[in-house]
Amino acid sequence: MHKVIFDTDPGVDDAMALLFLHHHPDIDLIGITTVFGNAAIETTTRNALFLKREWQIAAPVARGLAETLDPARPQADWPTFIHGDDGLGNIGVPGTIDLPLDPRPAHRFIIDAVRADPGAVTLVAVGRMTNLALALKEDPGIAGLVRQVVIMGGAFDVPGNVTPAAEANIHGDPEAADAVFTAPWPVVAVGLDVTMRTVMTRAALATIAEAGGARARLLADISAFYIGFYEGIVDDGMVVHDSCACAYVVAPELFSTRSGAVRVVCGGIADGMTVQKPDGRRFGPSDWDGRPSQSVCTGIDADAVLALIARTLAPSHRA
Amino acid sequence: MHKVIFDTDPGVDDAMALLFLHHHPDIDLIGITTVFGNAAIETTTRNALFLKREWQIAAPVARGLAETLDPARPQADWPTFIHGDDGLGNIGVPGTIDLPLDPRPAHRFIIDAVRADPGAVTLVAVGRMTNLALALKEDPGIAGLVRQVVIMGGAFDVPGNVTPAAEANIHGDPEAADAVFTAPWPVVAVGLDVTMRTVMTRAALATIAEAGGARARLLADISAFYIGFYEGIVDDGMVVHDSCACAYVVAPELFSTRSGAVRVVCGGIADGMTVQKPDGRRFGPSDWDGRPSQSVCTGIDADAVLALIARTLAPSHRA
Repeated sequence: MHKVIFDTDPGVDDAMALLFLHHHPDIDLIGITTVFGNAAIETTTRNALFLKREWQIAAPVARGLAETLDPARPQADWPTFIHGDDGLGNIGVPGTIDLPLDPRPAHRFIIDAVRADPGAVTLVAVGRMTNLALALKEDPGIAGLVRQVVIMGGAFDVPGNVTPAAEANIHGDPEAADAVFTAPWPVVAVGLDVTMRTVMTRAALATIAEAGGARARLLADISAFYIGFYEGIVDDGMVVHDSCACAYVVAPELFSTRSGAVRVVCGGIADGMTVQKPDGRRFGPSDWDGRPSQSVCTGIDADAVLALIARTLAPSHRA
Repeated sequence: MHKVIFDTDPGVDDAMALLFLHHHPDIDLIGITTVFGNAAIETTTRNALFLKREWQIAAPVARGLAETLDPARPQADWPTFIHGDDGLGNIGVPGTIDLPLDPRPAHRFIIDAVRADPGAVTLVAVGRMTNLALALKEDPGIAGLVRQVVIMGGAFDVPGNVTPAAEANIHGDPEAADAVFTAPWPVVAVGLDVTMRTVMTRAALATIAEAGGARARLLADISAFYIGFYEGIVDDGMVVHDSCACAYVVAPELFSTRSGAVRVVCGGIADGMTVQKPDGRRFGPSDWDGRPSQSVCTGIDADAVLALIARTLAPSHRA
């Protein structure tokens, strides 16, 4: 059983990942922490509450702060062309959701949950790394108490998506991501190297919606706008970035990984680029020296991961 | 027939590449320009003259300047652990070689040769990009008059060798490399993505030395020290970085390439990293926009390239 805090910025593919965590029998979802990225913090938090209500999720929602680790970083526009004006594919999410928030900020919620159950909590972070970095900054001791950190983020042997150098989650708060990668806790990066190969077709999503009842139908409605964005990037369907990270938690054997220290470029033309120093290779002195080895996903059995996601989203569905 | 200026810092694998250019029937070697990198400029220039004398090469040698494009860049120690104290594998190169140098600095030699034969000259650059960048700076108009620029340099989908981010030739003068990649001339980068897969075994080199006479025997003597450095990095033998770039000139069909603008990270932890923006991919606004597409080698028929090199170095040898 994996006790999971889901750090998220819903976000269309976040919604799918949340339903995966909610449904999977080996996951105990103990908290949802929100971060800005796919939309503003007000929007992603409202969306987390909306999905909690619609899907009857018990886990509390704790809201993140509204700025990057370095508050001086300029903020770009929200990617409404990917996730819609409401962050959930323009389905018409209500303006407010009448559900209480956890009173603590997201990073404090993370600290408390980790300290309450040492060695047990897995952090699954699929937005910017701001909350995780703030938690580390406020209480560095948690690094030794977390079971593992699984992030959707980075582009290692492939181009980025925001720029040729950088993937969106890392690019959105590079200083936070560098803090997360260089902390003494085990990080697994599920990045574009594997997520871009994991595309759920329209037909597969329709089958899930049919088999999975009202929850899955809402997910299919949310996803339509996002699928439109991916036209011309993939053949057909949606890249299930965030669900890949959740699939890793329960089925790491479907991934291959490479071990080595990871640093994030902060500033300059490659701002937000993730670079790994593979273990066992010789280099001159560099800024990677003395940093902990982390795991980077370099391979994925995409068909098996897609089948796992389909089975989990619609338990009656046999993919 | 390819009129080639060879910009080089001999350097052990440079020596092999020079003999390849000298022997290949489709190459007209019209000049050798020296750059620092594998050793100091005095050493690489002396070595170029030494090889010219030993191998009876007609092409003139023009010496490069002694500093990077940005003179404020700190200079690291020369990699004597790879190329030996004399830059040619500690074979005992004489202190001075009694042959005249071309009176012009390397970058001026390049400008004059390109202007003398518009559209005809191929620049093969296998050291730092300093001379090419100085030539562009002094006479930007040459960009339109060069047939092509083939460089050994960069690491695109693979780690670097000096640091996890950067390959040595680019890392040695990142500002110069960025100027070369972003100039309006056609550049082909033959980088670690393909050169690290192109390993000449000790046995293959011995066969060449046997079949190729005194010239090839000198090459084998020069290479022994360098092969020692590569123990533990490759199974057996020497990575023929610079000869790969020369092979590209006469046999581009043995390589696969990817097209897109290339920028070089200047400064920070990823100093000297090469990043391509692949053509046909969508990204947000970035520092790659509006720069010319260049070709990056992503694949190589290494066996065929090694056979081509062997045939060329020892014409009587049938690999």
